Amino acid sequence: MRSARLFAVFGALWLSVSTLRAADPLPSWNDTATKKFIVAFVERATKEGSADFVPANERIAVFDNDGTLWAEQPMYFQAFFVFDRIKALAPEHPEWKEKEPFASVLKGDMKVALAGGEHALLEMVMATHAGMTTEEFSKVVSDWIATAKHPKTGKLFTEMVYQPMLELLAYLREQGFKTFIVSGGGIEFMRPWAERVYGVPPEQVVGSSIKTKFELRDGKPVLMKLPELNFLDDKAGKPAAIQHHIGRRPVMAFGNSDGDLQMLQWTTAGSGARFALIVHHDDAEREFAYDRESHVGKLDKGLDEAKAKGWIVVSMKDDWKKIYP
Amino acid sequence: MRSARLFAVFGALWLSVSTLRAADPLPSWNDTATKKFIVAFVERATKEGSADFVPANERIAVFDNDGTLWAEQPMYFQAFFVFDRIKALAPEHPEWKEKEPFASVLKGDMKVALAGGEHALLEMVMATHAGMTTEEFSKVVSDWIATAKHPKTGKLFTEMVYQPMLELLAYLREQGFKTFIVSGGGIEFMRPWAERVYGVPPEQVVGSSIKTKFELRDGKPVLMKLPELNFLDDKAGKPAAIQHHIGRRPVMAFGNSDGDLQMLQWTTAGSGARFALIVHHDDAEREFAYDRESHVGKLDKGLDEAKAKGWIVVSMKDDWKKIYP
Repeated sequence: MRSARLFAVFGALWLSVSTLRAADPLPSWNDTATKKFIVAFVERATKEGSADFVPANERIAVFDNDGTLWAEQPMYFQAFFVFDRIKALAPEHPEWKEKEPFASVLKGDMKVALAGGEHALLEMVMATHAGMTTEEFSKVVSDWIATAKHPKTGKLFTEMVYQPMLELLAYLREQGFKTFIVSGGGIEFMRPWAERVYGVPPEQVVGSSIKTKFELRDGKPVLMKLPELNFLDDKAGKPAAIQHHIGRRPVMAFGNSDGDLQMLQWTTAGSGARFALIVHHDDAEREFAYDRESHVGKLDKGLDEAKAKGWIVVSMKDDWKKIYP
Repeated sequence: MRSARLFAVFGALWLSVSTLRAADPLPSWNDTATKKFIVAFVERATKEGSADFVPANERIAVFDNDGTLWAEQPMYFQAFFVFDRIKALAPEHPEWKEKEPFASVLKGDMKVALAGGEHALLEMVMATHAGMTTEEFSKVVSDWIATAKHPKTGKLFTEMVYQPMLELLAYLREQGFKTFIVSGGGIEFMRPWAERVYGVPPEQVVGSSIKTKFELRDGKPVLMKLPELNFLDDKAGKPAAIQHHIGRRPVMAFGNSDGDLQMLQWTTAGSGARFALIVHHDDAEREFAYDRESHVGKLDKGLDEAKAKGWIVVSMKDDWKKIYP
């Protein structure tokens, strides 16, 4: 009888250990304080009766995209798209051979092309994102994202998403959170693939946008994309876009750069339980290492404020078992 | 044995009839062709293997608000809010006594106040919707909507929602549709009560908006509402707003006026199963009767196009058992 009882006890132990293992929602995260903090917060937020309980309809989590959900070096992936589109559209624009910043792109000198700063970038965005219908643009993006590859890793750009963050997105959704992307990137650039890659449906993608115009074309209604900026979803624009699209303050916010600072401030200034996390790119070997001095994804003020306010700073090197899926 | 078998057969029949009755998702709709058409469409759209099957993630239904989900006579309910706010704010604005359109509002002459057309209306909207934070405005709306009453019916405005449409919203959600409001009314005017009254959460409310600005006020982040129009969500604006907020074409669209025409065109021009419905106000006794000649909720082109394209036109008089809850 004694051995049977022992067997039952060990059996139960074995069962609960294996259940725990099977239930680990974040297998690509090392068992560091970061992971423990995330899980503890979510458990408090979802436990009825807990002081930090958040009702299901208020469980909003917002994620930056570039540098938070996928890589952003040596430049934003949407910039690769812009350059590829300029090359593809060049035959229809013979004048581009003589006209900057297009001429430099066609010569392959992206540094000179980008030297014109925001104005030059905006000109290239308008030349490649406007002048067609929303459906046509969506198809262009879908075709590009299915084949274009990163020059350094040789991976598809959608293979350069962060596996630990994919697990975090899925975990939060399982716990009743609605996950939103709030990105400086183009809203219509992300939507064609965000649902497949991140599990985030188009109606939960927020980003920068250009204006559109409703027209009847041969009796068929279309939305033409106009070469006019509608909204720049970066820095102080992020809280405004969150309010405009979501209409309530997030409970959790995830970013990686100073462009996310106001979003994290806005999120954590709400009453009750709030959570802010910054992904710190400190893994030169497996990904890229950059912060205060970087032109892309600069993280300076955000790093100081995270320290001062006790926000979570993820060390990609220490906290993540793996980077890409 | 025979009677036992009969009993079993009748028992089964009785059970299925009572199940059908209990399961009627639209009890406030008369059993007319309209109701049958709605239910038949939803059954086809949600039945796997059906030619008209719509995957769950694409089940988007958009509803106009004024005149479609709640009443809009003798003027949009948000106009009552504007006038009440002007009266409440008048002590802080002594200059309004001499300045139109405010002077007329304070004298109680709404007709003269509105005679200045769109410009005067916009001025009144800015004076009452801007100059405070988004949270302050939300509280003002919540306080007003909890007590303000309709001059003719004496009901709270939120009691003048249409019971048959509440049932339709709930029915569609049960069938896996995400229900959105897409209204010419103010997005921040609807959000504070749309979830409680319609079951539509803030992130699924789309409407007209003014700009906001992120600021740190005594170190606390706020969004200040600016006296500047951001987007007018009416007519050709509705498809643009649908694309911007939702990012995919709705499967079903519900409106009541020419302001919804482009939304219905945009919805029904999609491939596969699409559904458009217009609520026709033809019940002077229980609600209001108006269409082609009305200043509010004018329905002229929409009525013709509905006939030409086979869209459903709801007769409030014939199709609805009751109007208000």
